[in-house]
Amino acid sequence: MALALSLGRRGRGRTWPNPAVGCVIVRDGRIVGRGWTAPGGRPHAEPQALAQAGAAARGATAYVSLEPCAHHGQTPPCSEALIDAGIARVVAPLKDSDPRVAGQGFAMLRAAGVSVTTGVMADEAGHDHAGFFLRTEQGRPFVTLKLASSLDGRIATATGESQWITGPDARRMVHAMRACHDAVMVGGGTARADDPSLTVRDIGTTHQPVRVVVSRRLDLPLMSRLALTARDVPLWLAHGPDADPALHEAWTGIGARLIACDLSGRQLDIASVLRALGDQGLTRVLCEGGGALAASLLAADLVDELVIFSAGMALGAEGLPSIGAMGLARLGEAPRFERVETRAVGADILHRWRRI
Amino acid sequence: MALALSLGRRGRGRTWPNPAVGCVIVRDGRIVGRGWTAPGGRPHAEPQALAQAGAAARGATAYVSLEPCAHHGQTPPCSEALIDAGIARVVAPLKDSDPRVAGQGFAMLRAAGVSVTTGVMADEAGHDHAGFFLRTEQGRPFVTLKLASSLDGRIATATGESQWITGPDARRMVHAMRACHDAVMVGGGTARADDPSLTVRDIGTTHQPVRVVVSRRLDLPLMSRLALTARDVPLWLAHGPDADPALHEAWTGIGARLIACDLSGRQLDIASVLRALGDQGLTRVLCEGGGALAASLLAADLVDELVIFSAGMALGAEGLPSIGAMGLARLGEAPRFERVETRAVGADILHRWRRI
Ligand SMILES: NC(=O)c1ccc[n+]([C@@H]2O[C@H](COP(=O)([O-])OP(=O)(O)OC[C@H]3O[C@@H](n4cnc5c(N)ncnc54)[C@H](OP(=O)(O)O)[C@@H]3O)[C@@H](O)[C@H]2O)c1
Ligand SMILES: NC(=O)c1ccc[n+]([C@@H]2O[C@H](COP(=O)([O-])OP(=O)(O)OC[C@H]3O[C@@H](n4cnc5c(N)ncnc54)[C@H](OP(=O)(O)O)[C@@H]3O)[C@@H](O)[C@H]2O)c1
Repeated sequence: MALALSLGRRGRGRTWPNPAVGCVIVRDGRIVGRGWTAPGGRPHAEPQALAQAGAAARGATAYVSLEPCAHHGQTPPCSEALIDAGIARVVAPLKDSDPRVAGQGFAMLRAAGVSVTTGVMADEAGHDHAGFFLRTEQGRPFVTLKLASSLDGRIATATGESQWITGPDARRMVHAMRACHDAVMVGGGTARADDPSLTVRDIGTTHQPVRVVVSRRLDLPLMSRLALTARDVPLWLAHGPDADPALHEAWTGIGARLIACDLSGRQLDIASVLRALGDQGLTRVLCEGGGALAASLLAADLVDELVIFSAGMALGAEGLPSIGAMGLARLGEAPRFERVETRAVGADILHRWRRI
Repeated sequence: MALALSLGRRGRGRTWPNPAVGCVIVRDGRIVGRGWTAPGGRPHAEPQALAQAGAAARGATAYVSLEPCAHHGQTPPCSEALIDAGIARVVAPLKDSDPRVAGQGFAMLRAAGVSVTTGVMADEAGHDHAGFFLRTEQGRPFVTLKLASSLDGRIATATGESQWITGPDARRMVHAMRACHDAVMVGGGTARADDPSLTVRDIGTTHQPVRVVVSRRLDLPLMSRLALTARDVPLWLAHGPDADPALHEAWTGIGARLIACDLSGRQLDIASVLRALGDQGLTRVLCEGGGALAASLLAADLVDELVIFSAGMALGAEGLPSIGAMGLARLGEAPRFERVETRAVGADILHRWRRI
């Protein structure tokens, strides 16, 4: 099952809106087939593993990192394929949360006499598929917030100097993080200040996640790296109802996808932004700042995982804070996280925290 | 040698102005004597280990975590004691930096035909004795700065609520850190805002480090925990030349030691404060904040070790920063630290950094 989960993870960032599933077929203690959801979400993991196994699938056990599907979509249901191949036993951690599946895959298998075991490594699988579950259940993607700051939580000096606080190893790791998310998201402030490209570079992958910029009025520079690459790498702009129609047209013209969201006060309603991204099919979004967008997400309790890179330097209170104003009155209202991991990354440290 | 170093560490915080040394005597592969510098700095480690070894010291090897002393002070020199006991070989990592010793201990031993090996675990010993070396060489103590903050580097909410950001395990660890420093130091702002007692509690030790408060004009509450306990646990006040004589007298009257320091602009000159503490014999000082004092120390590049406890919560930019204004213009001017250690402490994490 650990292998099935890790195969499944290979697809993360590229199978949306489908879950990234892994499948391992074992016959007489030998692995006879392996598969994982292909980019774009099809083919699924199971038919690929079955194809590898061939006749050896008869009487074998299939370990699948999520309940096999039961509905006829673009492909015949995987449960049917497993039955037809003569699989004797299916081991899967969890039910699928998609209402079209939700237990019916297991039911179909059992009805055909296949033995079904569930619950194995359910916690791990639950975390791996958290984005897929959140989207089907709450309509929004899983949100990872990444911050790279000094030891006192500053992301730039008073004069705006922010390159480089963390070292090359941390930066390479951020590129790897981008690659396993469906989309990378920043606020309009970062797009204006840093002219980022938000692409995945230097880690030997060609897959590029969607780039999302959150900007109410779309007043973003049209002569920017994001704009100039909008035809090569998807660029989505989440904007408000009052965005200038001329700007709307200009951005559409250069290849961006425009996504209308609701307002909440004078800014975009961040919950509405995430719902809109969920509607577009995204299951895993990596927010890379800046401080204002990070604060909005945290204040709305919409950060599922926090990944912090801390560099061994102090910048002092004039520096730009990693998290902007949150409007918290009391300590008890602060969003809280539990520790997942702490480790060294080059000269920096990385700590990962998960929403409690 | 690792054992000698760890025995030496038992004395940290209580042997000042002397170094905390450990000594292990080994004869035919068996440990026949162990000793470490006693509270107050005397007796030294070597005579205690020799007394334990008795006749077994003849022909044995002595592992000492610092060069044995060579001068006649309140006690006869340890080098002489080792020679008289018939020790055949002395292994020590480093020369003593005290000008009265500085190689003469080794010379005395060699002259008496004792074989001397140096350099073993010199890095570790250098760090263990860093406070003693800094004081003899630069006249100031080693400074550890401890910060306990949220993930975005905040030590209190906008309304000043700061109890408790970190959990009970981190707090217990802070008490253990206090116990192995000669003194605990805070700024006047923290003394006024928090009414701290700055004592070591709940870890089964009776030793209390000196408590130091840095306050130019001595306008600190006389009805405070610090004031009320000044006769039981040493309380030192570092003040400026313009402190009110009446306040000076009042604090002296309740048992505090008053230490005059120079000004630099409108605040105390922090280098002068540390020199004054060195003059008083302190070798290891733990600064526990607040933000203004931490910023002064960092801006003057006077923080030797930084220990940060990070709690899994976000407080936002209205919160009180862990490090105050430092007046940094460029990233290149930021004080930099290298990672020593990262680990989990209860629900929080601890990271230790050392001055580069
Ligand atoms: N070191 C690092 O890791 C790092 C990472 C990222 C950024 N940075 C730095 O951070 C700075 C930019 O941060 P920032 O805080 O000014 O900007 P930001 O968070 O990137 O963007 C804030 C902007 O997003 C738009 N927005 C719309 N709805 C929002 C909502 N609900 N919540 C928050 N924002 C919303 C608004 O712009 P519109 O008016 O367009 O709607 C708002 O001004 C730059 O200096 C950059 O260098 C550093
Ligand atoms: N969570 C935590 O770990 C933690 C720890 C400590 C403090 N805190 C919080 O921090 C707050 C206090 O911090 P703070 O920044 O206001 O005060 P601070 O750093 O404790 O003290 C600053 C004061 O020290 C005196 N001072 C003299 N010379 C100085 C120099 N060279 N540099 C800096 N200070 C000098 C000045 O007072 P005089 O006018 O008397 O000279 C100055 O106002 C409190 O709210 C407290 O709760 C939290």
